[in-house]
Amino acid sequence: MADNLKQAETELTLVMNQMSAYQQAIGLMNWDLRTGAPKKGVNQRSEALGTLSTEVYKISTSTHLKELLDIILTEEGKRQVSEITYRSAEELKKEYDKNTKIPEEEFKAYQILTTKAESAWEEAKSNADFQEFQPYLEEIVAYKRKFVEYIGYEGHPYNAMLDDFEPGMTVDTLDQVFTELREGLMPLVEGVKQAKQPKTGFLFKHFPKEQQAAFSREVLQSMQYDFEAGRLDETVHPFAIGLHPNDVRVTTKYDESDFRTAVFGTIHEGGHALYEQNISESLVGTVMSDGASMGIHESQSLFFENFVGRSYAFWEHHYDRLKSFADGQFDNVSLDEFYRAVNEAKPSLIRIEADEMTYALHIIVRYEIEKALISGEIEVKDLPGLWNEKMQEYLGVEVPHDGVGVLQDVHWSFGAFGYFPSYALGYIYAAQFKEALDQDIPNFDELLRDGRITPIKEWMSGGIHQHGALKKPGELLQDITGEGTNPQPLLRHLSSKYRSLYNF
Amino acid sequence: MADNLKQAETELTLVMNQMSAYQQAIGLMNWDLRTGAPKKGVNQRSEALGTLSTEVYKISTSTHLKELLDIILTEEGKRQVSEITYRSAEELKKEYDKNTKIPEEEFKAYQILTTKAESAWEEAKSNADFQEFQPYLEEIVAYKRKFVEYIGYEGHPYNAMLDDFEPGMTVDTLDQVFTELREGLMPLVEGVKQAKQPKTGFLFKHFPKEQQAAFSREVLQSMQYDFEAGRLDETVHPFAIGLHPNDVRVTTKYDESDFRTAVFGTIHEGGHALYEQNISESLVGTVMSDGASMGIHESQSLFFENFVGRSYAFWEHHYDRLKSFADGQFDNVSLDEFYRAVNEAKPSLIRIEADEMTYALHIIVRYEIEKALISGEIEVKDLPGLWNEKMQEYLGVEVPHDGVGVLQDVHWSFGAFGYFPSYALGYIYAAQFKEALDQDIPNFDELLRDGRITPIKEWMSGGIHQHGALKKPGELLQDITGEGTNPQPLLRHLSSKYRSLYNF
Repeated sequence: MADNLKQAETELTLVMNQMSAYQQAIGLMNWDLRTGAPKKGVNQRSEALGTLSTEVYKISTSTHLKELLDIILTEEGKRQVSEITYRSAEELKKEYDKNTKIPEEEFKAYQILTTKAESAWEEAKSNADFQEFQPYLEEIVAYKRKFVEYIGYEGHPYNAMLDDFEPGMTVDTLDQVFTELREGLMPLVEGVKQAKQPKTGFLFKHFPKEQQAAFSREVLQSMQYDFEAGRLDETVHPFAIGLHPNDVRVTTKYDESDFRTAVFGTIHEGGHALYEQNISESLVGTVMSDGASMGIHESQSLFFENFVGRSYAFWEHHYDRLKSFADGQFDNVSLDEFYRAVNEAKPSLIRIEADEMTYALHIIVRYEIEKALISGEIEVKDLPGLWNEKMQEYLGVEVPHDGVGVLQDVHWSFGAFGYFPSYALGYIYAAQFKEALDQDIPNFDELLRDGRITPIKEWMSGGIHQHGALKKPGELLQDITGEGTNPQPLLRHLSSKYRSLYNF
Repeated sequence: MADNLKQAETELTLVMNQMSAYQQAIGLMNWDLRTGAPKKGVNQRSEALGTLSTEVYKISTSTHLKELLDIILTEEGKRQVSEITYRSAEELKKEYDKNTKIPEEEFKAYQILTTKAESAWEEAKSNADFQEFQPYLEEIVAYKRKFVEYIGYEGHPYNAMLDDFEPGMTVDTLDQVFTELREGLMPLVEGVKQAKQPKTGFLFKHFPKEQQAAFSREVLQSMQYDFEAGRLDETVHPFAIGLHPNDVRVTTKYDESDFRTAVFGTIHEGGHALYEQNISESLVGTVMSDGASMGIHESQSLFFENFVGRSYAFWEHHYDRLKSFADGQFDNVSLDEFYRAVNEAKPSLIRIEADEMTYALHIIVRYEIEKALISGEIEVKDLPGLWNEKMQEYLGVEVPHDGVGVLQDVHWSFGAFGYFPSYALGYIYAAQFKEALDQDIPNFDELLRDGRITPIKEWMSGGIHQHGALKKPGELLQDITGEGTNPQPLLRHLSSKYRSLYNF
């Protein structure tokens, strides 16, 4: 290898190691903030986080990095450096371009705006008054429209935003996929609505927190989550965070009058954590030590939550254990009744409370609105009306006020456009992976019934987790399923599951 | 103020803010490592800590910093910049000089040596074989002797090492103070040895961990430790750590067959924590947001542990509460018996297990050895013999083997010479402060009896804590007690307490 190329590869590794040390510190500081840091220290913590993030930003936009990338991202570089280095350089170049194309002054003004907008959103939401938030959102949308022009895009301007969360995803694909999905889901929603509803009263009995925690730990263990490379803590808004594959932390929330929050929440975050724990050691310290995309990450949490955790076979194994931790709550509840209750589906107003069957419809509402907003087909003032119409049309629910409607999510207040679709893509990918897995592991249910999750986890780790960000989402999907984004497996799964559960 | 001076002051503040953001991250990462970080992540954590520490080192030895310090540390600077800036600049200059005077290559070789030496020490200690450790210690001592020459000193070369932990302290002072102390302590040791020993069997009954934790929290609260600016966690080797005054964490250890470990350990670390929590907000983000010295820091932990926590009056208030958390362990134990038991004194082999009365003698043994070693009066090979002689002479104990003798402490393996004296100085200062406090608060015992620690804590905060590192240890002592380091108050305290406890 040419000397300058060799040297550039070595230096890039050092730069990435430095960035990942900062990221580890930032990750831990955030985890700590959300799991018990003393409340008086929040301001100083934010300042320190700001300082460290600025350092990472400086490195990622430095001339030194740019020079290294220019040497590596050449025909000769592609032939001679390792795949990990080359792919890392590609990602760093993408970030570099994004970060340097937007004029610094404008980006700073935008950041100040989003900080204010988040408080304004909170206020507006609690007052259920969209007009309080409208001027902020108008400014944010104006910036976003301008920024995509700086960054550049092919086809629809919204593609540039999708790319932040789901590299390679486009409006063309999503239009097709989401239309198909919506048309497939609506009859299911109707069917469930008309059907006899399951009994659910027993779900809401008192289940002591410590016992929920003990059961949650047991479930994580059975999922092959490695407690020597992680820990479980309590928080207000649960998340999983990977500082690196040997330190991946899960957090959960205990609601003593609804054990489902902790149990299904822990399984969900556990799915994210399995991804992070099983990224190949060879990627550690590079920017490839990350998930392939937000949608692929979500496919792992949702696969474990819905295809494992909400399956009948899983509870054949775990129901007696759950009973042993509960205070008699399930004594007169059959496994069948339990299974029906934890799989209750019904159209509702709030996305984060939605069930497996209706969730994607909440996302489609948001996708259609975001896309039209960025292209300029609609304006911010049109949002509440459009929102309410679409909720009525797709889910059949009446929105009583904006607080539980268009103002329910925080995302827009910090400019996260293009983020929502990934949630629905997570459902779609999970179902696609499940059908591929069924080919290789036909006795899936039997394994769950025996509490043997290892082969399932190994299959996911081998096909997905280990590759980190080396493979792009489309590539992973193609390699595993032989096709692109396809909503049919999800529709087949939901249709068969809910027609059987609700007898329609 | 001249423009360049003004600008230098502003820039120095920015540099210090950046350093303190890194320090906050480093502090949290260390705290996490010792309170529950997943064990598989230790290597990656060490690497990240290395990266961040290197950054701090780079800043503290940068030409940019040097230029700022040269502008500020002038006659004009002294007149015009704030006292905080000037004192900070002095400290930074001291660090800069130390860090730049030792040739980088030698310092790196020394660091590699100490890493190896620590493992060698551990091995040697468990084999009780000094010869295994001897070659490492010889090399370390050779480096230390060379480094003090690079750094420079006045009088005895050991002064340069004392200065790392106790700015301004000298061999001349310590020789006098420690001789006086040793001569005053030896008759007390003898007296206690001959006297009737207290009953202590009841101390070692089973005391459940959760209940110890609850009592420990209550005691911290009564000390005015602010839980909104801190937290209490479990660890193996207890410590307190201040990330900044609004985030000061205490750790403790629960021994279910000896509650004293947690209770007195928590009070001790709580004393350190009160210091850190009460440093003035105006110092935050500067290098002045720190204790004045290790000895002054230790004076605070020891004041709370011994003068508060081991006093009769304290237990008049807390004994019933302790009983309510214990499982009947103290049912037939009078307050008087309890008080005698937790104040048991007897000569022993191990420093970290030593009681209030004999502790300083362990330090004096180490001081005399270190001093002679650095000056070249003795060599490493002489250590075991000298150690055993001095232990016999000062404490009257026979050392059965080096594992519980000269090899017991980790300090020398990482080159921490000059550190030990600060522990004894902590005892001495604590007693000096106590006599000064008695002048201002003559009803000390009455306050403890009523559980009113606030005025005591306020007195310490006003005189010591709030100043951070602005005042040097000698200055603090002079301002509060009107004198320099004086062992007489400690001797008066120990003599009166132990003559009365042991009736001699």
